[in-house]
Amino acid sequence: MGRRSIDDSEPQRLSRAAAHRLSLYLRCLAAWPADGGKISSGQIADSVGVNDAQVRRDLAALGNLGQRGIGYEARDLILAIRQTLGIDRTWRAVLVGVGNLARALLRYQGFRAQGFDIVGLFDSDEKKIGQVIEGLTVEPLEKLAERVASQKAELGVLTVPAAAAQVVAESLAKAGIRGILNFAPQLLRLPGEIKIVSVDLAIQLEQLAFQVQFPEATRHGDPIRDDLASPGVETDAP
Amino acid sequence: MGRRSIDDSEPQRLSRAAAHRLSLYLRCLAAWPADGGKISSGQIADSVGVNDAQVRRDLAALGNLGQRGIGYEARDLILAIRQTLGIDRTWRAVLVGVGNLARALLRYQGFRAQGFDIVGLFDSDEKKIGQVIEGLTVEPLEKLAERVASQKAELGVLTVPAAAAQVVAESLAKAGIRGILNFAPQLLRLPGEIKIVSVDLAIQLEQLAFQVQFPEATRHGDPIRDDLASPGVETDAP
Repeated sequence: MGRRSIDDSEPQRLSRAAAHRLSLYLRCLAAWPADGGKISSGQIADSVGVNDAQVRRDLAALGNLGQRGIGYEARDLILAIRQTLGIDRTWRAVLVGVGNLARALLRYQGFRAQGFDIVGLFDSDEKKIGQVIEGLTVEPLEKLAERVASQKAELGVLTVPAAAAQVVAESLAKAGIRGILNFAPQLLRLPGEIKIVSVDLAIQLEQLAFQVQFPEATRHGDPIRDDLASPGVETDAP
Repeated sequence: MGRRSIDDSEPQRLSRAAAHRLSLYLRCLAAWPADGGKISSGQIADSVGVNDAQVRRDLAALGNLGQRGIGYEARDLILAIRQTLGIDRTWRAVLVGVGNLARALLRYQGFRAQGFDIVGLFDSDEKKIGQVIEGLTVEPLEKLAERVASQKAELGVLTVPAAAAQVVAESLAKAGIRGILNFAPQLLRLPGEIKIVSVDLAIQLEQLAFQVQFPEATRHGDPIRDDLASPGVETDAP
C-alpha cells in the first residue's frame, strides 16, 4: 500500500482516466452493503471490470487505506475517493433546455445523491417558461446570469438542440459557469478554462454496434496501463 | 499513407479506443459542408481534440484514402469509417422502460441518421402499454422475445430503473439481443457474448466536477498513444 496520507496525495496529478476509474469504484462501493464487512480490491475489480492490480494501484494512491489480504472499509474508500475527485461537497448546476431529456435528468435520483444540485431551469420557449418541474420554475434565458450568480452555480447542463448549443454555451460561459455537461450532438468552442464533458448518445450506440459486429476487438491495449477508462467524449476548446 | 485497401484492412484488430476515435471523426466529417472541398487531418484533429499524428495514423489504417498535403474527401472517409465500425447497415433495437429518457431518445434524430432503428417499445407498467410514441406502440415485456425475433432486432436500449435492470437485461439476452445500451445506474451481469455499453450520467457529472476542481489534471497520459479515447463506461460480464 502507498504510504502517503490523503493530505500528502496530489489529486491534481490524477489523470482523467484514473479519475474515471475512481468514479466507477465509487458506484461499486456505494452498492456495498453496510454489514458487508471489508471489500477487497478483487471484488471491486470484478464488479467494475478493471484489472485487480490497477485497482490496487489506484487505491494505494489515495493513501494508506487498506490492509493487504484483509481489504478496505468501503466507507473510508468512499470518503477518500470523493475528496480526491473534488465531490466531497455540493456542486450547483443550472440546466438549459427543458425537454424530455431534461425531465429525465431532473428525476434522476443519482445526481442529488452524488452531491449535484440543480438550482435553475432555463428555456427560450415561452410556453415552457413558468412551468414548475421537480420544484423548479423554468425561467427565460435572460435570467441566466442573475440566477447563476445568486445561486453560486458552477456547472451547466446543456440539453438544447444542436443548433442552439454553441450560443447557449457561450451564455453559460459569460454567466460564470465553469463546466458544461453537454448532451447536444455538437462540438462546443469555448475558452479553454471552461471544462466540457459531452455525452453523445449516437456515439455510444455506434460503439455498441461495433462491439457486437467485431466481438474480438480488443477492449483495451493493455489492462494494466493507466488509461483503462477515460471519460466518454471529451471536447476541450482548442 | 497506408497502402492497404479497405478490403485488406483488418477491422477486427481495431481497438475499442480507436473505434471510439473513428466515431468522433465521423461527427466532424458529417458536419463538413458538401462544398467544403477536402478536409485535412489537422482540421479533423482540431475539431475533435485529438492529436494530428493520431488522426493520420487512424485514417491511414482505413486504406489509401488521402493525399499528403491535400487532404481527404469527407465522403470517402465517412464510408470507410462506417464500414470499419460495422455501421454501414441498419441496426435494429428494442427499447425497454418508457420514461422521459426513453421519450428523449425516441425523439433524438441522431439515432436514425446513424442507421439505428428502434423497432419495439416495452414497459411493465399497464398504464403505458398501448400508448403510441413516435409511431411505436408500447408492449408488455411478455412480448419481448416475439418482437425481437419478428423484427430481427439485435440491440437493446435499457432505460428502466436500476432495481429492474438486471432482470430486464436477462430477458433481453434470452430474447436473442446481442448488445445492450444501458442507462440504468446498475452494473449488469450477463454472459460474455452479450456486449454492454453503459452510460452513467452521474459519472459524467463527477468527471466534469473533477476537471473544474482540478483544471490542471492531465487530459491523457500521452496524446500519441492508441488510447486517447475510449467508450464512456464499459462493463463486460466477468
